[in-house]
Amino acid sequence: MFIARSEYDRGINTFSPEGRLFQVEYSLEAIKLGSTAVGVTTATGTVLGVEKRITSTLLEASSVEKVVEIDRHIGCAMSGLQADARSLVEHARVTSQSHAFHYAEPIGVESCTQAICDLALRFGESASGEDEASIMSRPFGVALLIAGYDENGPSLYHAEPSGTFYRYDAKAIGAGSEGAQAELQNSYHKSLTLADAEELVLRTLRQVMEEKLDAKNVQLASVTKDRGFRVYSDDEMRACVQRIEGES
Amino acid sequence: MFIARSEYDRGINTFSPEGRLFQVEYSLEAIKLGSTAVGVTTATGTVLGVEKRITSTLLEASSVEKVVEIDRHIGCAMSGLQADARSLVEHARVTSQSHAFHYAEPIGVESCTQAICDLALRFGESASGEDEASIMSRPFGVALLIAGYDENGPSLYHAEPSGTFYRYDAKAIGAGSEGAQAELQNSYHKSLTLADAEELVLRTLRQVMEEKLDAKNVQLASVTKDRGFRVYSDDEMRACVQRIEGES
Amino acid sequence: MFIARSEYDRGINTFSPEGRLFQVEYSLEAIKLGSTAVGVTTATGTVLGVEKRITSTLLEASSVEKVVEIDRHIGCAMSGLQADARSLVEHARVTSQSHAFHYAEPIGVESCTQAICDLALRFGESASGEDEASIMSRPFGVALLIAGYDENGPSLYHAEPSGTFYRYDAKAIGAGSEGAQAELQNSYHKSLTLADAEELVLRTLRQVMEEKLDAKNVQLASVTKDRGFRVYSDDEMRACVQRIEGES
Amino acid sequence: MFIARSEYDRGINTFSPEGRLFQVEYSLEAIKLGSTAVGVTTATGTVLGVEKRITSTLLEASSVEKVVEIDRHIGCAMSGLQADARSLVEHARVTSQSHAFHYAEPIGVESCTQAICDLALRFGESASGEDEASIMSRPFGVALLIAGYDENGPSLYHAEPSGTFYRYDAKAIGAGSEGAQAELQNSYHKSLTLADAEELVLRTLRQVMEEKLDAKNVQLASVTKDRGFRVYSDDEMRACVQRIEGES
Amino acid sequence: MFIARSEYDRGINTFSPEGRLFQVEYSLEAIKLGSTAVGVTTATGTVLGVEKRITSTLLEASSVEKVVEIDRHIGCAMSGLQADARSLVEHARVTSQSHAFHYAEPIGVESCTQAICDLALRFGESASGEDEASIMSRPFGVALLIAGYDENGPSLYHAEPSGTFYRYDAKAIGAGSEGAQAELQNSYHKSLTLADAEELVLRTLRQVMEEKLDAKNVQLASVTKDRGFRVYSDDEMRACVQRIEGES
Amino acid sequence: MFIARSEYDRGINTFSPEGRLFQVEYSLEAIKLGSTAVGVTTATGTVLGVEKRITSTLLEASSVEKVVEIDRHIGCAMSGLQADARSLVEHARVTSQSHAFHYAEPIGVESCTQAICDLALRFGESASGEDEASIMSRPFGVALLIAGYDENGPSLYHAEPSGTFYRYDAKAIGAGSEGAQAELQNSYHKSLTLADAEELVLRTLRQVMEEKLDAKNVQLASVTKDRGFRVYSDDEMRACVQRIEGES
Amino acid sequence: MFIARSEYDRGINTFSPEGRLFQVEYSLEAIKLGSTAVGVTTATGTVLGVEKRITSTLLEASSVEKVVEIDRHIGCAMSGLQADARSLVEHARVTSQSHAFHYAEPIGVESCTQAICDLALRFGESASGEDEASIMSRPFGVALLIAGYDENGPSLYHAEPSGTFYRYDAKAIGAGSEGAQAELQNSYHKSLTLADAEELVLRTLRQVMEEKLDAKNVQLASVTKDRGFRVYSDDEMRACVQRIEGES
Repeated sequence: MFIARSEYDRGINTFSPEGRLFQVEYSLEAIKLGSTAVGVTTATGTVLGVEKRITSTLLEASSVEKVVEIDRHIGCAMSGLQADARSLVEHARVTSQSHAFHYAEPIGVESCTQAICDLALRFGESASGEDEASIMSRPFGVALLIAGYDENGPSLYHAEPSGTFYRYDAKAIGAGSEGAQAELQNSYHKSLTLADAEELVLRTLRQVMEEKLDAKNVQLASVTKDRGFRVYSDDEMRACVQRIEGES
Repeated sequence: MFIARSEYDRGINTFSPEGRLFQVEYSLEAIKLGSTAVGVTTATGTVLGVEKRITSTLLEASSVEKVVEIDRHIGCAMSGLQADARSLVEHARVTSQSHAFHYAEPIGVESCTQAICDLALRFGESASGEDEASIMSRPFGVALLIAGYDENGPSLYHAEPSGTFYRYDAKAIGAGSEGAQAELQNSYHKSLTLADAEELVLRTLRQVMEEKLDAKNVQLASVTKDRGFRVYSDDEMRACVQRIEGES
Repeated sequence: MFIARSEYDRGINTFSPEGRLFQVEYSLEAIKLGSTAVGVTTATGTVLGVEKRITSTLLEASSVEKVVEIDRHIGCAMSGLQADARSLVEHARVTSQSHAFHYAEPIGVESCTQAICDLALRFGESASGEDEASIMSRPFGVALLIAGYDENGPSLYHAEPSGTFYRYDAKAIGAGSEGAQAELQNSYHKSLTLADAEELVLRTLRQVMEEKLDAKNVQLASVTKDRGFRVYSDDEMRACVQRIEGES
Repeated sequence: MFIARSEYDRGINTFSPEGRLFQVEYSLEAIKLGSTAVGVTTATGTVLGVEKRITSTLLEASSVEKVVEIDRHIGCAMSGLQADARSLVEHARVTSQSHAFHYAEPIGVESCTQAICDLALRFGESASGEDEASIMSRPFGVALLIAGYDENGPSLYHAEPSGTFYRYDAKAIGAGSEGAQAELQNSYHKSLTLADAEELVLRTLRQVMEEKLDAKNVQLASVTKDRGFRVYSDDEMRACVQRIEGES
Repeated sequence: MFIARSEYDRGINTFSPEGRLFQVEYSLEAIKLGSTAVGVTTATGTVLGVEKRITSTLLEASSVEKVVEIDRHIGCAMSGLQADARSLVEHARVTSQSHAFHYAEPIGVESCTQAICDLALRFGESASGEDEASIMSRPFGVALLIAGYDENGPSLYHAEPSGTFYRYDAKAIGAGSEGAQAELQNSYHKSLTLADAEELVLRTLRQVMEEKLDAKNVQLASVTKDRGFRVYSDDEMRACVQRIEGES
Repeated sequence: MFIARSEYDRGINTFSPEGRLFQVEYSLEAIKLGSTAVGVTTATGTVLGVEKRITSTLLEASSVEKVVEIDRHIGCAMSGLQADARSLVEHARVTSQSHAFHYAEPIGVESCTQAICDLALRFGESASGEDEASIMSRPFGVALLIAGYDENGPSLYHAEPSGTFYRYDAKAIGAGSEGAQAELQNSYHKSLTLADAEELVLRTLRQVMEEKLDAKNVQLASVTKDRGFRVYSDDEMRACVQRIEGES
Repeated sequence: MFIARSEYDRGINTFSPEGRLFQVEYSLEAIKLGSTAVGVTTATGTVLGVEKRITSTLLEASSVEKVVEIDRHIGCAMSGLQADARSLVEHARVTSQSHAFHYAEPIGVESCTQAICDLALRFGESASGEDEASIMSRPFGVALLIAGYDENGPSLYHAEPSGTFYRYDAKAIGAGSEGAQAELQNSYHKSLTLADAEELVLRTLRQVMEEKLDAKNVQLASVTKDRGFRVYSDDEMRACVQRIEGES
């Protein structure tokens, strides 16, 4: 019932009588309005792909950054509020550099994900300490797909506003996530090559996007042992898109 | 009456006219939505078992960690909000290491449980001290089964969001806790061996899980004098599950 | 009238138009839900007795601690929220040790009670000082019977969530307090021996408990000049219970 | 009108449209529920008397302290919430000792009263300074009769939760204050001796108490130049009570 | 409309849609309930007069201080909440002494008034600095007539809860202020002597007081160059009252 | 609609669904209740004029200061809440002196205006820094006309509670601002002399004032290169008023 | 539905059940009430143009600054609340100078935009750190077009209250943005010269302005490699306006 619900979400971080945290649930709605992002792991690396919503031809497509580097060996794709994502990513970058400085080795992908989730959990606190700039007065309205390569090989994590995270072989988030996840479930298998993964990501996005997919309104990135995290160049994007063209 | 109730839970930590703390009661509802966890003590050690809800075949089962180490001689199984549990466990780990450092001996299992409960009780405070990062603005939405081995032998504690804890011979928490506890009440006796305990835990979980129990959707761990806390390997899991197969 | 009442308890520490403090009154309701505790003084010492509610045979009776030591010469029995009681007792222990350290003599029983009540009165403050960890954002949901032996001989105090305390010859708190207090009123006299007091406490508890009283679901403790505070062993409990058996 | 009133007392220290401070007015109701206290001044000293409500024969009458020393030459009688009174009295004691230490002379009775009222006025502040422990989040629910003897001779002050104080020749507070004040108005005259004052106080209390007045349920105290503040012993109480017995 | 108004005064210091500050307006109501005070300036000094409400013959009239010294050359009469007035006056005294100490000359009367008004304006702030003890969480419920004598000769200021102040030749505040101000308007002229002013003040008070004016229920004070601020003695009061007796 | 509006102004600094800041808009209403003030610039200097509301013949007209000096070369006229204006002006004076001290040159008129507006914008913040005394918990209820003379010649600024400011050739604020601004619009031209400006200001005020304008109920001031800011003496006022007399 | 909406915007930074942040959406309404601003990039530089609403001929057009310098190589045009814009711009200037000081090179245009957006995102925090003066208790009610020239050539960014920013070839904001953006979409092409861009900006503004465009009610500025950011002089404005005159 609507009125009853509104009673509980005024306290931003309190349980409803059914044991639910409404502000966290509402933040998931913000993500459902976001563009779709997809991640697929293979034995040699992980591929991330995002839908770029280019609302105007005057908008520089390159400034719509929905897949970004966290560290040389970790990157992420995002869906939801862009400014929130930037804040989380900035936190992850600082944590990552700080780890490298103190321990003289790159941060593990799970540790990095954990750091993001720790911050997400702390919304609503009136922090007065060193992390002040990072703590929000509400849940982050963004979900992340975090891809990386460390001593355990390639990996893909899904992190949510609630601070929960899990590792996946292949995962989709955002407006088209339901259809995309079904597609991944059908087509994913452990023996995919990196090129196969690129194609699976693009085909999955094509299926859920309203616009016709082309080399400008999607963006791929990958993390591999040799080359670390890198966003694909315009030429690479055109080549990848061409490979799946002709398919319906 | 619903409206009356909603008046009281807006203050997150106040008594209702009947002397109840609604936010704490609501957090128990969050736990009732969690996966089931079971603990059983024997003369030589304690066994913990958890149900892993693998919602997708693309989800890495190993990243669903619901039974984790706190110290070499203490571990815990959890039910409820995963991020909350991680925060409590992290607090317990720090307390544990700090104790070992200051007193040059491992922390007692009860002291460790007490430290978790002290933190749980303090929700809603606007702490500005050293523990800032650990204090929540609401009750923790998680229950823990804490198993350990110290100078008093093996033990099993149940800790709740209210900060209350008790010691049990055998205890179940989470969605299936009612049926599971009844099963434990019937089958538990003091002379169980560790192997008996493993089987009792698995049979109890099998009874309350919706999915068919197999070596991937449950996880066992144990604490013994010799080997401390350890999570069972995939091979061990397969062996244990096989032992109870054939039984209906 | 219900609606009117609900207006006032939102401010956790404000007067109603009738001059009442509702949060404090509501916390007394939490105590009325607690297990019964009884204290009786004699010329040579004070006896405390508590009902232990053993809700399951798998619950370790010894972990249900409802009568605990504060200092070598002071102990207390509690009724209400266990975690709250633990917090108050911890505060009393620190105060007690601090007193002994600074003045090189044990704290008086009344001073110790006063320290507990000072803390209880301060609920709702947003303290930022040294006592931060002890101050609650609501009244403590617990009543205490504090027994001790100091230069003025044995004594028994009753402390409430409001911060009020009085000294009693014999006093009962918790769910069965009404019936228990009537029994004490009838049977208490100044010339009781310590053994008489043990029996009076047990008989009083037996009268108000729903379960049949035995050596496991009650616990006695005493404070005397020679032996200070001590909780009775299992053997002693069995002996005491036997002494009142046969009586109806 | 009730609903309108409830709008204003939510802000604990704000004016209503009629220029009233409701929380202060409500705290006066708490005092009207308190036991009666009476003070009478004479040329040689001031007598204070309080009703002790001994609700049970098992309650130690001596622990019901409603007339207490502030300094060697100042004492007070109280009516209302016991824990609040204790907090105010403790503040007065510290102020008094601090004054004696800094100025090498006893604090004046009016200065002492002023210090109590300054604290009372400050309720609702979120103080973070040195007085933190003394400032309440609501008005104090207690009225005091402060009696003392300084270079200006004997005096009697009445202090209220609002922080207002006045000096009186004779004054009654608490549940029976209306009837008691009328009695004082009729019977008081400037030439009373200390013994006359003792009798006037007792007769006044007798008239408004529900129980029959005896040497245990009332308590007298006095402040004189020679003996300072002192609470009457049991023997003295019995003698005083005997003196008014036989009168109807 | 009543309900609409109640919406705005919950925020203690916010504008209503009509640009009004309700808490400040409500505090003026508290002053209208206060006793009347009158001030009249002449070429040689200023006279202040206040009504003392002696509610009981047992109340020491001298403890009802409604006209008090701020510095040797400044005093004030007050109407409204006594405890608030005391707090403002104390602040003015400290400011005054601090000025004398730093600049080695007495504070000007306007500067002193300004300091009082600065404090009054700041209600509702959660100050954490040095003035913490003086800042109220609501407007002061008191108006002051501040009279003084400095290098510019005698002066009279009227200060309000809003922090506004103006200088007057003659001014009345409190319950009878309307009638009293009309009387002053009719009778005041610049060539009044100090004795004339005493009589004008008394006649004005007589007109608005409910009780019959006598030497005990009013109090005069004056500030002149030679004698500074001084409250009239009982003898002087009797003489002044006699001078206007016989007049109707 | 009224009820809807009342929902939004409870948060003192939040947007309504139409993008409006109601508390700021309401503060403008407080200014519309204020007395009228007018400013006119010429090539050689700026003239300010204010209406003084002398509500009583006993009120000292000179204490109604509505046009005041900020620095030797800057002054301002105000309309709205007097105490708020004083607070803003005090802030401007301190800023001005601080600038002169640090840079060894007088502050620019625009910089000074900017400093006032920066403070105005910050209402509602819970500042804990050095400016604490100046930050209000609501918008300032005052508008200012700031006139000055610096290296860019004479200038006139209008500053509002929202923190917005613009430079004007001629501007009116307060209750009569609408009619006054129309008059200025008709009569102003760039070639006015300072004497012309004095007359324009007076004629404009005369048109909107309810009382008949005379030398006591208006006040002129001017800022010129040679003489800086100065308030006109009583003799000058009489002369200026005479110059426009006879005109209708 | 209106009532439901009002429930959510009371918490200034919380999600509604649909995942929306109402305060941010409402702040966009404030921008829709602002004057129109337009930006157009070319190969050699970026042109900004703003509509100046000159509400009175007595208002100094030059004091209506809606296009301002941030650094020698960056400037911005604004639409919305002027005081908010000034605060954001001041923050950008400090960040810019601080960057130049620490790194001995001018800040990048994107970094500068990022700094503005980071601040915008943090509204509603009760910051107590160094940036205190810049953090608002509500979203900024302003949108900015940020134009600059750095090592990547000329660029144009659009920054919103939500903290989101994108890079555009040409972009319009404010009241006429819808019509203006359509015009830009039709007429913009990559090969525009700076002079073409000036004309496109003016023609676009002319189309959406209610007043007839002239050299006083619009303002152009540009950023080029050689001359950095500069606002056009009156002569330049007249020349530019003349160039598009005659066109309908």
